[in-house]
Amino acid sequence: MLKVVIIGSGNVAQHLIKAFLNSADAELAQVYARNPEKLDNLLPLNMITNSYEGLKDADVYILSVSDDAIEEVTAQLPFKDRLVAHTSGSMPLDKPDNKNRRAVFYPLQTFSKSKAVDFTTIPICLESEYPEDYAILEKLAKSISPLTYAISSGQRQALHVAAVFVNNFTNHLYKVGNDICTENSISFDILKPLIKETADKITILSPADAQTGPARRNDQKTIQRHLYFIKDQEKKDIYTLLTQSIQRTNG
Amino acid sequence: MLKVVIIGSGNVAQHLIKAFLNSADAELAQVYARNPEKLDNLLPLNMITNSYEGLKDADVYILSVSDDAIEEVTAQLPFKDRLVAHTSGSMPLDKPDNKNRRAVFYPLQTFSKSKAVDFTTIPICLESEYPEDYAILEKLAKSISPLTYAISSGQRQALHVAAVFVNNFTNHLYKVGNDICTENSISFDILKPLIKETADKITILSPADAQTGPARRNDQKTIQRHLYFIKDQEKKDIYTLLTQSIQRTNG
Repeated sequence: MLKVVIIGSGNVAQHLIKAFLNSADAELAQVYARNPEKLDNLLPLNMITNSYEGLKDADVYILSVSDDAIEEVTAQLPFKDRLVAHTSGSMPLDKPDNKNRRAVFYPLQTFSKSKAVDFTTIPICLESEYPEDYAILEKLAKSISPLTYAISSGQRQALHVAAVFVNNFTNHLYKVGNDICTENSISFDILKPLIKETADKITILSPADAQTGPARRNDQKTIQRHLYFIKDQEKKDIYTLLTQSIQRTNG
Repeated sequence: MLKVVIIGSGNVAQHLIKAFLNSADAELAQVYARNPEKLDNLLPLNMITNSYEGLKDADVYILSVSDDAIEEVTAQLPFKDRLVAHTSGSMPLDKPDNKNRRAVFYPLQTFSKSKAVDFTTIPICLESEYPEDYAILEKLAKSISPLTYAISSGQRQALHVAAVFVNNFTNHLYKVGNDICTENSISFDILKPLIKETADKITILSPADAQTGPARRNDQKTIQRHLYFIKDQEKKDIYTLLTQSIQRTNG
C-alpha cells in the first residue's frame, strides 16, 4: 500500500487528510504542520510533526502550502530523490527545489472549511518530472478519486484561469443576483433553483447550446429596459460587457 | 378542481402543458396553438384549438406567448371578465388588454426543449389585478409546484434582471471556460465538478462568504499571470472588470 505524507495544514491539506484517512488503498503515514494543534480534531497528535527532520519515509510527499511557500519548503526538506508533489493550480512543475523528484497533485475543486466535499467526484490533475513516477502518482490519486488526468504545467495554467471564470466569477454573479434581490425585498431562495438548473444543464448541453436570454436573441428592448433598471454603474458595466460578449461569440 | 387553458405552444407552454397533464389537482381543459400539429406528441388533437372563438370555459387562462404578442393576443380574446395570467418575467401586470382580469403566472426557470424539468422545484411568481383572484392563482400554481411567491411587477422586473446575471451571464462564463479548455486540448469535463460545487455552495453559504480566488485575496501576482495568459481582449476585459468588482464589493 502506498504511504503518503501530507505537508501543510490549510484548507486543501485538511480535505486531503480526511480523504486519505478514509481511503482503503493508501496509508496516511504522517502530517507536517507548524502548529499541530490546528489539526488535533482530525488525527492523533502522534501522527503530526512540526519538524522537517521528524518526517517519516513515504512513497509520496504531498506539499499543500501556499504558492509563495512552495520553493522555500521544498528547499528545506532534509532528504533527496524522493517523490514530492505540490497541489498548486498555477505553480509550474520545475519551480520547486530540484533535489527531490518533482510532481504535481492538483485537485481541481473549490474547498471551504465549512462544507464537506466528496473527493470521489473531484478531478485530480497529475504531472511528474520523471515518467516512471507517473504510475505512482496515479495509483495514489486513484486511492481517493477515480477522476485522474495527465495535465501539463501549461494546461494546468489554462485550467486555473478557466476555473477563475467558472468558479470565482460565477460566484460573483450570484452575489450580484443576491444584491438585486436584497435591494428589492425578494428572497434569494427564488433564484436558487435557476442557479442549480444552469449548472446542471451543461452536463447535457454545451454552454453555447445552453445559452438563452435577451443577449442571445438580440432583444434590444429588454436589454435597454434592464440597463435602465440597473442604477449601479459597475453592475451596468458588467451587464453591457457580458451582453456584448454573448452577442459576439454566440450570435 | 380548477380548469386551466393554456394559450401558446412554445417552450414554456410545452413544459406547463406537461406539468398540468401530470397534476392531480388541476385539469388542463384545452390548449390554443396556431399550429396544433406542433403539440401532437404532447396531447390529443381534440384538446387543441387554433381559433380564439373555439376556446372553452376555464377558471384560468395562462397566456404563454412572446412578450411582444401579449397585448395583441389579449385584445383578440372573445370574452371578458375572466382570469387571464401571462407568464412573462418582464411584462408589467397592467400592460395586457384590460377587458379580462389580469394576472401573472411566472415560473422562474430556464427551459430548454431538450431537457426535462421537475416543475415541483420551480418557484412560481404570482400577481393579480384583483386581490380575490390571488387565491385562485395560488391554488393553480400549487397544483404543479409548492414554491409560490407573491411578487409585484417591480419585484418581477428586478428578478428578471437578477436571473440574467445568475443564468445567462453565468452560462456565458461556462462558455469562456469551455473555450479555454478547447484551445488547450483539455476536456471540459474536468471543470464540471467545480461548476456543480460552485452552484451547490450557495445553498449553504451566502455568495459573499463563498467567494474565493485571486481577486478575493488580492493576489496580484496570480492576477497579472492570468491576464498575461489570456490573449483574447474581450476575455481580458471580462477578467479585469469582474476582478475589480469582486475587490470593490467583497474586500
